[in-house]
Amino acid sequence: MAATTSSYSITMRLHTAPDHGIVGAVATAIAQAGGIVTAIDVAESSHERLVVDVTCSASDADHAKLVEAAVDAVDGVKVYKTSDRTFLLHLGGKIEVASKVPLRNRDDLSMAYTPGVGRVSMAIAEHPEDVWRLTTKGNTVAVVTDGSAVLGLGNIGPGAAMPVMEGKAALFKRFAGIDAWPICLDTQDTDEIVRAVELIAPGFGGINLEDIAAPRCFEIERRLRESLDIPVFHDDQHGTAIVVLAALTNALRVVKKELGAVRVVVSGGGAAGTAIVTLLIAAGVTDVVVVDRAGALSSDDDTLSPVHSELAAVTNPRRVTGDLHTVLAGADVFIGVSAPGVLKPEWIQEMAPDAVVFALANPDPEVDPAEADKYAAVVASGRSDYPNQINNVLAFPGVFRGLLDARASQVTIDMLLRSAQAIAHVVKDDELNPNFIIPSVFHPDVPKAVAAAILGDS
Amino acid sequence: MAATTSSYSITMRLHTAPDHGIVGAVATAIAQAGGIVTAIDVAESSHERLVVDVTCSASDADHAKLVEAAVDAVDGVKVYKTSDRTFLLHLGGKIEVASKVPLRNRDDLSMAYTPGVGRVSMAIAEHPEDVWRLTTKGNTVAVVTDGSAVLGLGNIGPGAAMPVMEGKAALFKRFAGIDAWPICLDTQDTDEIVRAVELIAPGFGGINLEDIAAPRCFEIERRLRESLDIPVFHDDQHGTAIVVLAALTNALRVVKKELGAVRVVVSGGGAAGTAIVTLLIAAGVTDVVVVDRAGALSSDDDTLSPVHSELAAVTNPRRVTGDLHTVLAGADVFIGVSAPGVLKPEWIQEMAPDAVVFALANPDPEVDPAEADKYAAVVASGRSDYPNQINNVLAFPGVFRGLLDARASQVTIDMLLRSAQAIAHVVKDDELNPNFIIPSVFHPDVPKAVAAAILGDS
Repeated sequence: MAATTSSYSITMRLHTAPDHGIVGAVATAIAQAGGIVTAIDVAESSHERLVVDVTCSASDADHAKLVEAAVDAVDGVKVYKTSDRTFLLHLGGKIEVASKVPLRNRDDLSMAYTPGVGRVSMAIAEHPEDVWRLTTKGNTVAVVTDGSAVLGLGNIGPGAAMPVMEGKAALFKRFAGIDAWPICLDTQDTDEIVRAVELIAPGFGGINLEDIAAPRCFEIERRLRESLDIPVFHDDQHGTAIVVLAALTNALRVVKKELGAVRVVVSGGGAAGTAIVTLLIAAGVTDVVVVDRAGALSSDDDTLSPVHSELAAVTNPRRVTGDLHTVLAGADVFIGVSAPGVLKPEWIQEMAPDAVVFALANPDPEVDPAEADKYAAVVASGRSDYPNQINNVLAFPGVFRGLLDARASQVTIDMLLRSAQAIAHVVKDDELNPNFIIPSVFHPDVPKAVAAAILGDS
Repeated sequence: MAATTSSYSITMRLHTAPDHGIVGAVATAIAQAGGIVTAIDVAESSHERLVVDVTCSASDADHAKLVEAAVDAVDGVKVYKTSDRTFLLHLGGKIEVASKVPLRNRDDLSMAYTPGVGRVSMAIAEHPEDVWRLTTKGNTVAVVTDGSAVLGLGNIGPGAAMPVMEGKAALFKRFAGIDAWPICLDTQDTDEIVRAVELIAPGFGGINLEDIAAPRCFEIERRLRESLDIPVFHDDQHGTAIVVLAALTNALRVVKKELGAVRVVVSGGGAAGTAIVTLLIAAGVTDVVVVDRAGALSSDDDTLSPVHSELAAVTNPRRVTGDLHTVLAGADVFIGVSAPGVLKPEWIQEMAPDAVVFALANPDPEVDPAEADKYAAVVASGRSDYPNQINNVLAFPGVFRGLLDARASQVTIDMLLRSAQAIAHVVKDDELNPNFIIPSVFHPDVPKAVAAAILGDS
């Protein structure tokens, strides 16, 4: 059974007989069904009955139904209503706008709005740079998506992408004090996306592109970087790349290998794979092979798409060919940003000794981390229920904190490299071990360290 | 001297001799210079000196300098630094984003973000209407401008418009609990504005167009109302029209005249004037004449712009011609949404008895309200330092509260009429008098009454 997570947490309202011991029987039933009780509240108690709210975690929807049935089967217990806590949390959305200024009386209004605000607007009209100082622009990020590649869910559109973008905005605030607002675009046309972002840019200090499908995302980011005077960062690419390089840096510290001396195989030539490869090469990796559905990308292959041709041109120096299994032989590092189950655990035995395996496909990785652990020296995944979670939350809040503080107009590859090193070095030498190559997203030093790294030379 | 307002409030840090009585001397100097002391704080006190922060209001920038000079001239006092409180208030912007959900630990993160958020996104992908329930969309408004007609300041561009749009967002929250975000567009092209708003619409529950110049604003609003399934409201037009109709309703209650029987002259055929005329006609006014720079608009005139031709076609039933002075003779009501000083106070004597004068040009009205008061029965203006302030804040928060609560897709003219009646009737019969025809913006009943009026038939 998969691990229980809070993403599938339910609250059941029970009507029970007022018998002594009935709550204990419910807890036992839930535990026997594999659920984990996190809270029991008696909402009502009378001689006739108890009304009890029981909150518990389950591994998925089917498991939740099993747990509910187990409780309902307890003698004297009736499940009156079951609420899904994740949905309850999302009701009405997860972010709101707050006023930072008092609006108690006419004097407040005269300063915050008309007529006082007129002088502030005129000051900006006369000195356009003052928009950074006198408005929220200097602390804001637009989280922009077209809904075309949302999480592992695919092309679900701008409305369905909203919960993710709101979540991202909430994380921006929580981890870096940044005011981010979701902009979910009703188009998947490259030109329209570019133009829309250009048009809304005056009010924002940075643009976080999110969950936009490849190869469209590459052109959108490139064109926006050229046309805008605020930083543009596609988190699915560069956020992922930063955290992967941080984790790889520490994994190689564990197995005592050098970045410049390892053979790396990247499974997946999409947005994340491309950005990871680019950053690894900038960091000094010399032998990286990208494997896509059709096998290893090689500059010998003239049937590749333009994007894959570019990738092939800077990778695969030994011009290897073949599928993932073939290419993996002798490799030191596997990095998967592709699809569930493409890596058979036993293939890891054919890798070089002390193999490093990052299986990052979400929600189901390229290989079960527990299986991979039998053969590899270090294993990381995108999952929160195994050690070494590769999570973009480690990067993007600090990256934008640094970009905004620096009032940067560009994101440079040196910034990305320094951010990765900053995250890696939050893990101290004496903390480092195969199960701890990457800090927790709640480690309080991470956003500050990343922001400082971004500010480094800007 | 104009009235002092908090929009010009300064804080002076003084270094003074430690003499008894010196703070009193400063207060006297400020009062003699026409300033109003609102706070005195001794920040530091030693045998050598006092450091004193004195906050006071002045009428404008020149007056503030006069006050400062008067203080500096007091024996033993040196003005060390003067801060403009309005600018201090705007530093870093006036709004921020807040997370409505806890993000304390991994369980919180699993529900608010991955993996839990994926289920919420999938639910919306399967049932698109759920975006209203499971995201912030249902409580959000985009405050959209192109910066082309900001307050009375003109075409100052999107960056300089930001403080106004942020202020509006703060007011939305303060008066109606609505989460509004400023969208300042880097274009003044009608097609581009329309398309940009269409593209960002999925994440918002309503569009508040703001400070967009006429005649562009008419086409933009019309096209957006056709293409979007969320309500579109140009506040400079319809917000103003609602409050004017509310005030006029009550002014006529005071002078005991009927809407259908009065002659109305509107000075200004721009965005606000057009919307006011349209709403007055819908409310039952039959004789309204619009006077623009070239005189009364009449359907006899074939040199008019398309927009003015449309206005002329529904107004001026007596086909009067001539300038404002000429047209005003015998009129019951003057409504100015034009330019400072266009109405000479003595012309009011030539209007019908018990004349009503609304001089709404901002910041300087068509006629000094105090002068108009000598001749008219009821006077209103846009100024906060005279009775009867016509302020859009009375309308837009409640309007959008009602639209969002109704999940309305359109704004109808009946909604506008009902909103005006709702605002008018917040003033009870026994409260009504020539100096109180419109409630205070802080009257707690106003937003609720307007929201209820919007919900009326939707």
